Amino acid sequence: MTEAMLYDYWRSSASWRVRIALNAAGIPFRSVTVDLLAGDQRGDAHLERNPQGFIPVLEIDGLRLTQSLAIVDHIDETRNAGFLPGDAAGRARVRALAHVVAMDTHPVCNPSVVSEVVRLTDGGDAVREGWMHWFIRRGLAAFERMLADGPQGRFCHGDRPGLADFCLIPQVYNADRWGVDRADLTRIDAIARSCAELPAFAKAHPDSVR
Amino acid sequence: MTEAMLYDYWRSSASWRVRIALNAAGIPFRSVTVDLLAGDQRGDAHLERNPQGFIPVLEIDGLRLTQSLAIVDHIDETRNAGFLPGDAAGRARVRALAHVVAMDTHPVCNPSVVSEVVRLTDGGDAVREGWMHWFIRRGLAAFERMLADGPQGRFCHGDRPGLADFCLIPQVYNADRWGVDRADLTRIDAIARSCAELPAFAKAHPDSVR
Repeated sequence: MTEAMLYDYWRSSASWRVRIALNAAGIPFRSVTVDLLAGDQRGDAHLERNPQGFIPVLEIDGLRLTQSLAIVDHIDETRNAGFLPGDAAGRARVRALAHVVAMDTHPVCNPSVVSEVVRLTDGGDAVREGWMHWFIRRGLAAFERMLADGPQGRFCHGDRPGLADFCLIPQVYNADRWGVDRADLTRIDAIARSCAELPAFAKAHPDSVR
Repeated sequence: MTEAMLYDYWRSSASWRVRIALNAAGIPFRSVTVDLLAGDQRGDAHLERNPQGFIPVLEIDGLRLTQSLAIVDHIDETRNAGFLPGDAAGRARVRALAHVVAMDTHPVCNPSVVSEVVRLTDGGDAVREGWMHWFIRRGLAAFERMLADGPQGRFCHGDRPGLADFCLIPQVYNADRWGVDRADLTRIDAIARSCAELPAFAKAHPDSVR
């Protein structure tokens, strides 16, 4: 079988989710850097892979896939990887948690969005920082409250890591990168520590793939 | 069985997706308005339902569900509703299309985000309109290009409406509401016309539920 090929960038949160999922499912892959700082994502070669000009793009199973959560679902369904619980209530809960990050937090803090805010305000780094603080904090605070309701354990949903954890961990990294105060978000902190101990997460960390 | 109860607002895109899905699956539901203009979403009663303070919230099957796409997945999986194709390639394609809208377009244009842009710029309606134009156009243009690759038909993925159509239609409505030029996006326009003819979509339209 052809080796899976991941077009990614070391610090991209969406790529990081997919790296965790590939590792967790035991799928070997080759990583190809799309250098976001150099603007590779806007080049013809990458737009041919993904008209959105975003990463990650995963070539696997003879398919070329875009959108990190669609990719994670593909891996889960085709490898029976157990990224979602088996019961309907659990599946809905894990997906809702994942989407708090993947829909309402991360896209709002995407570089292309924040750059537009900075351009419109001419506010430079102060505006960028304020934006990150506001929206990351809002997302993680809601996530923490939602964690209280449902199965407790070492991970977001009991003692097995899954889709919600794949989304949470890169967002926590971004929170720390921007100096967002999360001292009171103790459930999230405990889960982040549990995830850091797992090889699938550790191998996917930006510092490991840079 | 207890009737399903949807906490929604007539013009909320995320609520609209869920209304289409409920209609398409033939699930009767009662709608309870959370008046976004009056700030109901920030009241204690609603924060108790959803710590994010967002709509929709769906009470169904003895569960209280949040996040529109997690809700649509719940309906699909528990009712075998066929919102996704049966093949892995099709599922990944439909999800990716859905996420172009639900992750990269709609959340960036959420009122709470745009209000923050307006506040930071003190730019009023001109900034609001410019923001909507830029990000809605960006999302729909990518969506149009992605439609070209894969099964053609009356809907986003062949001749059966599904998850991608549920996400697309409210976004097209928002494009028109803000005066976004989409004359060149002919595939999207044809799909929007096909969807408008279906009762599940027509009954869910803001003008029908207002």
